[in-house]
Amino acid sequence: MTKTVTVLSGLIRPLVENRLPDWVEPRFFLSKDEAMALAPEAEIGWFDMYDKKDMAAVITGATNLKWLNSIYAGVDGMPLDLLARRGTVVTNGAGINAITIAEYVVMGMLTIAKGYREVVRAQDRREWLTDSPGKIELFGSKALLLGYGAIGKLVEERLRAFAVDVTIVRRSPGKDTLTPDQWRERLGEFDWVILAVPATPETDGMIGAAELAAMKPTATLVNIARGSVVDQDALVAALDQKRLGAAFLDVTTPEPLPEDDPLWSLDNAHITMHLSGRAQDKMFVRSAERFLENLDRWKTGEDVTPQVNLTLGY
Amino acid sequence: MTKTVTVLSGLIRPLVENRLPDWVEPRFFLSKDEAMALAPEAEIGWFDMYDKKDMAAVITGATNLKWLNSIYAGVDGMPLDLLARRGTVVTNGAGINAITIAEYVVMGMLTIAKGYREVVRAQDRREWLTDSPGKIELFGSKALLLGYGAIGKLVEERLRAFAVDVTIVRRSPGKDTLTPDQWRERLGEFDWVILAVPATPETDGMIGAAELAAMKPTATLVNIARGSVVDQDALVAALDQKRLGAAFLDVTTPEPLPEDDPLWSLDNAHITMHLSGRAQDKMFVRSAERFLENLDRWKTGEDVTPQVNLTLGY
Repeated sequence: MTKTVTVLSGLIRPLVENRLPDWVEPRFFLSKDEAMALAPEAEIGWFDMYDKKDMAAVITGATNLKWLNSIYAGVDGMPLDLLARRGTVVTNGAGINAITIAEYVVMGMLTIAKGYREVVRAQDRREWLTDSPGKIELFGSKALLLGYGAIGKLVEERLRAFAVDVTIVRRSPGKDTLTPDQWRERLGEFDWVILAVPATPETDGMIGAAELAAMKPTATLVNIARGSVVDQDALVAALDQKRLGAAFLDVTTPEPLPEDDPLWSLDNAHITMHLSGRAQDKMFVRSAERFLENLDRWKTGEDVTPQVNLTLGY
Repeated sequence: MTKTVTVLSGLIRPLVENRLPDWVEPRFFLSKDEAMALAPEAEIGWFDMYDKKDMAAVITGATNLKWLNSIYAGVDGMPLDLLARRGTVVTNGAGINAITIAEYVVMGMLTIAKGYREVVRAQDRREWLTDSPGKIELFGSKALLLGYGAIGKLVEERLRAFAVDVTIVRRSPGKDTLTPDQWRERLGEFDWVILAVPATPETDGMIGAAELAAMKPTATLVNIARGSVVDQDALVAALDQKRLGAAFLDVTTPEPLPEDDPLWSLDNAHITMHLSGRAQDKMFVRSAERFLENLDRWKTGEDVTPQVNLTLGY
């Protein structure tokens, strides 16, 4: 039986090694150089690396690659055009860390509503505050949810339990729904604007000076998408001039944020260092399970899931 | 027409004055002395004061009082025996701030799960963390909810939306329910133990050394009831020796917590200074609305609500 050469990051080895089907010939790499050396033989690859440029180089060298898997939801660091030309199937981590990210969004909204950061600082000073630094209830507030993928759906479910009035944005009209050409003119109605869109050319800079100006001056912007979705200079200006209530930013431009960036010190900017997806310990386990299930599908000719649309970029 | 003398805290005046029915003769007080002078005439009283001893003195002097109202849920500072002997009806603020307290509970659980306090401190240092200080998901975790009044029910609804497996404690057995004689032996099963019980002799010291020892060493205790519900010395010892994961304490013994109290500096104690109920700006409005509705009921002989059971103390 001819085996299928499958090149995998060594990080995933303990979770899959003893459970791979016998038609798979696994090769594990621990460095970029090892990955580059193994790449040309790979029919199946799982090439996740911290440095996205390294990963793109390995993908470029994987000239026989039929299926590329990734633990990450975002594929904006991959050479999508090249993969499309080669006909490589790409599966990503969409939904793998959606649960923790959705939990993080609600945490961000609650901590801003209650002024919890000031409570933390008061405890550090051993000071008993006599009134709450924040007096907002989620109950009855209005949220606009841009992006209705795995994360957006989980955010919506959770917010509805808090009696938040959630409006989603999607192409098909419906109850509590705005279409992509409608939401901008309605921005002023919302207490929360939550960005959970994929990073694509279409969403690049989607929240700029005009959108920020249209928001309620008390509103909070929550970004768990990508820094590039927001015009960060315009955001800094709006926050600094208190034209916007607050921003909860899991993502920024660039990352890491330089030490002298003005965002750090704005008292209404809450920076969470792209930790939302990392605030769990089940990502590797869930991703490995999904990959093993997909190997069975691959062998029987079924579609592996979830597949990235290489034209749309998510 | 004989009017009913109704003695009210001046704090509530702007919310009720122009809306009182004509059978009410309102008298507003701004100090303890004014309240003491007005008390003997009062048939209806709303005597809330910051100092509970002052309030108890005013209640004691209100020898003609038929109905006592309070904005607070807790009535443990009131002379309940005396009120019972006099046959005074007592309505309290049960449920008035339940929404914000329930939101606060979920915030506390999320911030502990994700290690958010460390994220706040890192931002204050302008430090980009590369991994999440907390990696717990609420999803799939198990919570024991002690106290199933207005707050407990709202907490339960919210936690279920996070797919938390919630077990409640109440006298009538049912699904996901433990009875008061069952929960202690099951304590070791839960990731979260949430105290939302009223402060009564029965709940005094309900969580002591034995209960803390029975909890999972990774579990979090959430107390939004009263400091007296927990044996605080035993809690400090358990937290200090890491026999318990964390405690989220909206209430402590005493309040305010003295500056040299060991709780302040334990890295797994999260102190929120009895702010949970204050983290909203609708309490006075909601309480005034309820009082006005109750005045109509009082006039027609209907029961005013919610009435405190003076024997049970809640």
